[in-house]
Amino acid sequence: MQFILHDVLSLQNYSNLPGFSDASPDLIDQILEGGAKFAEDVLFPLNYSGDKEGCKRNPDATVKTPDGFPAAYEQLVDAEWLSLSADPKYGGQGLPGVVNIAINEMQSSSNMAFSMYPGLTHGAYQALLAGGSEEQKQTYVTKMINGKWSGTMNLTEPQCGTDLGLIKTKAVPKADGSYKITGQKIWISGGEQDLSENIIQLVLARIEGGPEGIKGISLFVVPKFIPDADGNPGERNALECGGLEEKMGIHGNATCVMNYDGATGWLVGEEHKGMRTMFVMMNEARLGVGMQGLAQAEIAYQNAADFARDRLQSRALSGPAAPEKPADPIIVHPDVRRMLMDSRAFTEGARAFMFWTALYGDLLHKSPDDAVRQKADDYMALMTPVVKAFLTDIGFKTTSECLQLHGGIGYTQEMGVEQYMRDARIAMIYEGTNGIQALDLVGRKLAANGGRAIFTFFKEMDDFVGENADNGDMKLFTDALSDAKKKLEAGTTWLMQNGLSNFNNAAAASTDYVHLFGYTAMAYMWAMMAKTALEKDDGSDPYYANKLKTARYYMERVLPKAGSHLDMLKAGAESMMALEADAF
Amino acid sequence: MQFILHDVLSLQNYSNLPGFSDASPDLIDQILEGGAKFAEDVLFPLNYSGDKEGCKRNPDATVKTPDGFPAAYEQLVDAEWLSLSADPKYGGQGLPGVVNIAINEMQSSSNMAFSMYPGLTHGAYQALLAGGSEEQKQTYVTKMINGKWSGTMNLTEPQCGTDLGLIKTKAVPKADGSYKITGQKIWISGGEQDLSENIIQLVLARIEGGPEGIKGISLFVVPKFIPDADGNPGERNALECGGLEEKMGIHGNATCVMNYDGATGWLVGEEHKGMRTMFVMMNEARLGVGMQGLAQAEIAYQNAADFARDRLQSRALSGPAAPEKPADPIIVHPDVRRMLMDSRAFTEGARAFMFWTALYGDLLHKSPDDAVRQKADDYMALMTPVVKAFLTDIGFKTTSECLQLHGGIGYTQEMGVEQYMRDARIAMIYEGTNGIQALDLVGRKLAANGGRAIFTFFKEMDDFVGENADNGDMKLFTDALSDAKKKLEAGTTWLMQNGLSNFNNAAAASTDYVHLFGYTAMAYMWAMMAKTALEKDDGSDPYYANKLKTARYYMERVLPKAGSHLDMLKAGAESMMALEADAF
Repeated sequence: MQFILHDVLSLQNYSNLPGFSDASPDLIDQILEGGAKFAEDVLFPLNYSGDKEGCKRNPDATVKTPDGFPAAYEQLVDAEWLSLSADPKYGGQGLPGVVNIAINEMQSSSNMAFSMYPGLTHGAYQALLAGGSEEQKQTYVTKMINGKWSGTMNLTEPQCGTDLGLIKTKAVPKADGSYKITGQKIWISGGEQDLSENIIQLVLARIEGGPEGIKGISLFVVPKFIPDADGNPGERNALECGGLEEKMGIHGNATCVMNYDGATGWLVGEEHKGMRTMFVMMNEARLGVGMQGLAQAEIAYQNAADFARDRLQSRALSGPAAPEKPADPIIVHPDVRRMLMDSRAFTEGARAFMFWTALYGDLLHKSPDDAVRQKADDYMALMTPVVKAFLTDIGFKTTSECLQLHGGIGYTQEMGVEQYMRDARIAMIYEGTNGIQALDLVGRKLAANGGRAIFTFFKEMDDFVGENADNGDMKLFTDALSDAKKKLEAGTTWLMQNGLSNFNNAAAASTDYVHLFGYTAMAYMWAMMAKTALEKDDGSDPYYANKLKTARYYMERVLPKAGSHLDMLKAGAESMMALEADAF
Repeated sequence: MQFILHDVLSLQNYSNLPGFSDASPDLIDQILEGGAKFAEDVLFPLNYSGDKEGCKRNPDATVKTPDGFPAAYEQLVDAEWLSLSADPKYGGQGLPGVVNIAINEMQSSSNMAFSMYPGLTHGAYQALLAGGSEEQKQTYVTKMINGKWSGTMNLTEPQCGTDLGLIKTKAVPKADGSYKITGQKIWISGGEQDLSENIIQLVLARIEGGPEGIKGISLFVVPKFIPDADGNPGERNALECGGLEEKMGIHGNATCVMNYDGATGWLVGEEHKGMRTMFVMMNEARLGVGMQGLAQAEIAYQNAADFARDRLQSRALSGPAAPEKPADPIIVHPDVRRMLMDSRAFTEGARAFMFWTALYGDLLHKSPDDAVRQKADDYMALMTPVVKAFLTDIGFKTTSECLQLHGGIGYTQEMGVEQYMRDARIAMIYEGTNGIQALDLVGRKLAANGGRAIFTFFKEMDDFVGENADNGDMKLFTDALSDAKKKLEAGTTWLMQNGLSNFNNAAAASTDYVHLFGYTAMAYMWAMMAKTALEKDDGSDPYYANKLKTARYYMERVLPKAGSHLDMLKAGAESMMALEADAF
């Protein structure tokens, strides 16, 4: 994390921006160390027990989170971990968002189910900041920024997930300007819990008489307890948790059926324009979900590396490595190394990709330079679906590979690693399935502004390759990057030539395109990290040499997958769509 | 299944072999239909409930399997489903093994945890048939063939899984020729249960004073109840279940810690040669595990296809497909089709690969022709690790893709599809992890007899391409097969040139080689199926046209992965092994 923040992204160069001037490398290091200690000492010990115990709905419709969660949540709030990068105008500390995401990664690695409670609050108040009135910001956001109040997003209903135009929850205007909200929402993470003193539900609903479909959806803020005149939790609102889902994983997070029975809500933003504001929240949340894919891969990798050093089994092919022991530690075996190196090449590259993207989020909000803000806006839009889908697809795969490294004991619950895989699995689904991310990328993000974002990205990679053309030590990395970039360009050209005339071609190619994009973006990250490592390596710390070795592994042993995705996407939609529906 | 057995493999052409003459197409169809009915009506209804309830160890060390399992097991035994292909000399029905594997696939699809109880019995009596005395065969095998008695394999101990040379369980000879067995075995599937009247443990142990390492391991038969003079269960032996593992999946199967406290056992085969006989059991079991990967993919696919036709969400990109409904069924969306077609191309290709391999198992045991038996022996040895590793890797991936197709509800337990994924995950691990399969392939099977097996396989694919060179309808398929075969040949050549001088190169390449092999073998299966479908297609049944469409999908949209595996394996071991162990 320090290598990426200080050396690769050079945060210290942005000290002209609000919040960055306070974030000296020393301060960032202190924050990272404190965050790591909190994650290890407070959150991680509750991860396995929280999975075992799960959440329970009481007969009075309250929800009990696992033992220890309320106390840990109180500590999280008291230590102000949640307000790190929040807007100082509403009580936040105003530090760079990219520092916050590092802390979030640690919290998610140590306890994904727990960290979702504050994680969704963060998205919820961002939506209120983007679309709410100043009064709503003062009433809600100031209480949510440190976590005393929490936030949720209520989108899904039994008949609609992806297709929110089918929403039935209705809102009826009342004389006082508020609305009566009635309907059922499902899969509401943290819809009810015993952690925060109030829960602020953001609810998509249809105002009675409004347009059909997606253009009739409005956003409402519906607090569990209606704030009184002093802004404290007052009257209990007419909403409750009707049940909890039993899920494959994230058992410590309460996934609620939420019933709204004429609950009082207030419109956020304009009538029928709820999707626009909800997308602010969703984009924020999608980057956070990508981070979860990385975070679960990281904790699984750390467990796998320890296990590989400790477990004795068979001898190295090149002769005994630990002749004094009954067998060698399994880390001597190439196929065990493969699993570790695949995992490491992913987590380190993904972290760079995540932080690099998050920095554009800071630049978008804080840069005084129009051109920088425009590029940041372009990149955030372009990279968000890739970060979400690619990091969760490969993050999940990594947790599975780290389980595999353990052999049989990895399949037992006591080892804990199977939990990481079960927890990671949801990230490929929620906040828009990865298939939806892929459609968003090829159907919306690529073509926006005449492809300005992707062409800027191509040029940036070309420039990087050009700038390093005379550096022999960089040749391995820039050659590989250059090749991957050409493939991504070929895939993009194919899409432009074949996807516009036949949308099915674009959709058929979309998932392969996300993966081609992800592997290429990671190649760029690894090339940048290699360049930095070469510059910093004076032989005194093996860290930099190891970084270069891992960069090489990525280029040689991971990046070739990009080529097969290009081959597959160019096959077009025909064979994919050839069968009749009833032939399946 | 019928298409593969009758049309592709043409079982009717082998009527000169024992057992095959009885297996007319009509009889096979009756068996398949009966097997399907049994799987659907008896086993499948216990799958979800068995997962929920799991197994329980009672205070007296007996084990209770889930409700309904004992009654279903009794039906399984009574209907003689277990003795289909067993040796008539010991009470079996002597039908082709390839028919039996079709029935096993159905049972595994409908209830993997349940089907493991008889599955391991099958492997256990094969080992006794291969290595046991005639008395042992009469005493045990005749009772095991129909499942009245069950069998297990006891290999793993806490300090050894892969590396069985570290086994500590000891065997002390007694005056009567039997042995006292003492030690602890772990992860013994079905080590204790309430299904069969006796449990025949096959146990690897070290005879006191025997050689160190793998060359001092002997195999023992250790019955739970020692057969009395009439061959009925008699005295209770000194062994018991010390505990059950809590696992990610297969909850309905009891994974036991087995404690042997001076239990009476009898040597199977020769002293210190136990591994040889155990490998008979293990090879049998490995094919069965590959089948489990396919079986879980199949049931997940069937659920996904139904869901995709029923779930309404969004409109087709080409315009509403069901304008009378609030949205279109999601099967209209290309990315949903991608998941279905990936799954279908896998399951149909994998089933052909499985059955094709199993038929060589029949030929090995039953053909009167030396050359046929030799080829069958070569192929069984070569294909077993590929079937095990490739079918379980991609089978698991398929269950995950089918879960993904469901969106959020796929992650809930009520939908059932997440169970298929959890159950499928073990198959990549047990009976030798997939990494061990890969090492077996590159380190042992490829080089055996100067590479005779793989060169025969290359020639067979070349011959197929050559024979169909004039068939324009086959060009798409033979071109793709030819290309894949060249890549597999290139990978093989690379291994021969680089793996012998540096074993780490071979081991580093092994997993990619298995996948390159698997995709190529499946391409051969698909090309064969395409040829058969072209011959059979008279336009009256869309089945054959659909087969051709799926074959095309496989070649265009799945097979390109083979190329990336070749690229990766050729990178060699250097970057994989570059880091010091403490750098991880």
